[in-house]
Amino acid sequence: MTAANPLFYLHTPNNGERWQALFAAELPDFDVVAAPAEVDPARVQYLATWRPPEGLFGRFANLRAVFALGAGIDRFLQRSDLAPGVALVRLTDAGMAQQMCEYVLAGVLRYQRDLDCYARQQADAQWQPLPGRAAADLRVTVLGLGEIGGAVARTLALLGYAVAGWSRSPRELAGVRCLHGWDTLPTLLAATDVLVNLLPNTPETHGLLNHERLAGLPKGAALINAGRGEQLEESALLALLDAGHLRGAQLDVLGQEPPGKEHPFWHHPAIVLTPHIAAATLPGPSARQVAGKLRALLRGETVPGLVDRERAY
Amino acid sequence: MTAANPLFYLHTPNNGERWQALFAAELPDFDVVAAPAEVDPARVQYLATWRPPEGLFGRFANLRAVFALGAGIDRFLQRSDLAPGVALVRLTDAGMAQQMCEYVLAGVLRYQRDLDCYARQQADAQWQPLPGRAAADLRVTVLGLGEIGGAVARTLALLGYAVAGWSRSPRELAGVRCLHGWDTLPTLLAATDVLVNLLPNTPETHGLLNHERLAGLPKGAALINAGRGEQLEESALLALLDAGHLRGAQLDVLGQEPPGKEHPFWHHPAIVLTPHIAAATLPGPSARQVAGKLRALLRGETVPGLVDRERAY
Ligand SMILES: NC(=O)c1ccc[n+]([C@@H]2O[C@H](COP(=O)([O-])OP(=O)(O)OC[C@H]3O[C@@H](n4cnc5c(N)ncnc54)[C@H](OP(=O)(O)O)[C@@H]3O)[C@@H](O)[C@H]2O)c1
Ligand SMILES: NC(=O)c1ccc[n+]([C@@H]2O[C@H](COP(=O)([O-])OP(=O)(O)OC[C@H]3O[C@@H](n4cnc5c(N)ncnc54)[C@H](OP(=O)(O)O)[C@@H]3O)[C@@H](O)[C@H]2O)c1
Repeated sequence: MTAANPLFYLHTPNNGERWQALFAAELPDFDVVAAPAEVDPARVQYLATWRPPEGLFGRFANLRAVFALGAGIDRFLQRSDLAPGVALVRLTDAGMAQQMCEYVLAGVLRYQRDLDCYARQQADAQWQPLPGRAAADLRVTVLGLGEIGGAVARTLALLGYAVAGWSRSPRELAGVRCLHGWDTLPTLLAATDVLVNLLPNTPETHGLLNHERLAGLPKGAALINAGRGEQLEESALLALLDAGHLRGAQLDVLGQEPPGKEHPFWHHPAIVLTPHIAAATLPGPSARQVAGKLRALLRGETVPGLVDRERAY
Repeated sequence: MTAANPLFYLHTPNNGERWQALFAAELPDFDVVAAPAEVDPARVQYLATWRPPEGLFGRFANLRAVFALGAGIDRFLQRSDLAPGVALVRLTDAGMAQQMCEYVLAGVLRYQRDLDCYARQQADAQWQPLPGRAAADLRVTVLGLGEIGGAVARTLALLGYAVAGWSRSPRELAGVRCLHGWDTLPTLLAATDVLVNLLPNTPETHGLLNHERLAGLPKGAALINAGRGEQLEESALLALLDAGHLRGAQLDVLGQEPPGKEHPFWHHPAIVLTPHIAAATLPGPSARQVAGKLRALLRGETVPGLVDRERAY
């Protein structure tokens, strides 16, 4: 480590050596350091992290940019030690969109092709074909048309589903009926068979999937939540499943992760739970992308994924 | 019914009125008849059917063509009353390929994205992310590259899987590593993570998925069978699942359908059973297609899906 090189500080919750090797390879002209004891905190201007411990940001008085090693940066914005002047940059796709397409598609296929019903029939040793629905007749609504939601909506449309998408500002996507703004939401929900949430968690979207909105889905609709647990009112989902209004839910995110052992979702027959694996950060593509974003930042260029603190995503 | 019109005879196991209305609309210049009492058997030259009762074909001495309202015609060829000179024509796609893509994809996603493991974890209230596999690293082999298998292989390749396909004669498909002939099979199976069977049931493919071939898959491989139950040695599958060599199987077809209540597949934790619903005959597109095939036959043109009795498909 020579003091001549700029410093790139790394704090990762796991795979520390792997990340360090990847960043060292991507940033040969930087000192990539992961141990606090090895650095003068005043030298740390650029930092990449995920699940940063409370107080990490505050340690570095000259911090200029934080690179989140994930797409959802709600936890970063909820912290008091990240000064407003520090640039916060998130991952944009970096291999997550494809994974999310797979995750959502698995859920869509379960409900379209009655795989949930057939599993119950199998348990009862019952062999009974059900009418089924053509992809073109299944109305899938994707909330959030960003890097991830946009890719999901496009892929579902390509596969023949009747896809609608919802965002804050107007979007155009091949094969997708795009709507935007809160006014359009009630009518959209009323015409949705499978609702897919891929919104970022912000003050506006927090608690979005509440009782009123979920009850506004047609009877028999299903929910796939891979955005953030804070966006779903869990008791409302439970009530609507138990009342038979909703058919089922595939949930990758929860208000508390992992949920307590007594959480009612674990053993609910209409809920499929996965442990926040819908779209994992891929170290290789992510290190490459962050290195590119850092260089763009240093050249004074626009950095894709630079978080707008006002919008909170 | 005027005696001047040629006759089109219909025998369907269900939805009789729907089929009759559809064919009447497609063939306005024919008498479409479904009741034996209403016809002179000698007038019946063209017949469309599925699950024909034993003796149906023998009743019509002047039969020239039978249109199967399905893709797999193994049951037709196993019958003694279908004279060799009668043209047997099967459905080609007619909306089944898309359904099969969905069915196979649901299975591929289950094994790729560990949804089987996560279901077990959920039952144990366990929240544990697993490493997962990228689509590009999942080797999916599709046996049979016809109307249905070809579409499945192409769709999986489009979605990023490492797809190989196997047929009798050489085939070329975008993004698919195509192999043909028995010699190539052992090496292919040894390099397969998910094996998808979409072969027609013929004397050659009967019992194809036997102990030796299934044992030739790598440890942890999974099977999706949506061809015919007769192609799978069920006891071999069971033994290899129970020995932990195979990871799981999604089966849409069985040697006996429905299977007896004591069949071991019903309650096997590694088997997903569906009641022969992977790709259902769609009356609308099918009636349209059969009408088109009939007219092609009458014009002396090549009829797609004309069964080669020698090959048995
Ligand atoms: N479960 C997992 O494994 C996993 C993995 C990765 C990401 N995620 C979640 O997925 C989220 C989305 O990621 P991304 O990369 O696609 O984000 P992104 O590119 O920032 O896209 C966000 C989308 O949400 C829309 N949106 C934001 N606020 C809205 C509002 N108030 N009303 C309507 N639309 C609104 C945006 O609208 P505009 O187009 O108008 O800006 C945009 O289309 C992440 O924030 C994260 O929570 C989950
Ligand atoms: N479960 C369901 O709901 C469902 C629904 C529809 C169909 N199916 C099954 O799917 C089967 C396939 O339908 P399809 O319309 O795709 O049939 P197809 O168009 O006739 O295609 C058959 C494919 O199998 C290959 N094949 C046949 N015998 C072979 C052998 N001995 N060795 C290697 N390859 C061989 C053929 O090779 P070539 O290309 O060289 O001719 C061809 O690629 C049907 O027969 C039926 O059993 C199941």
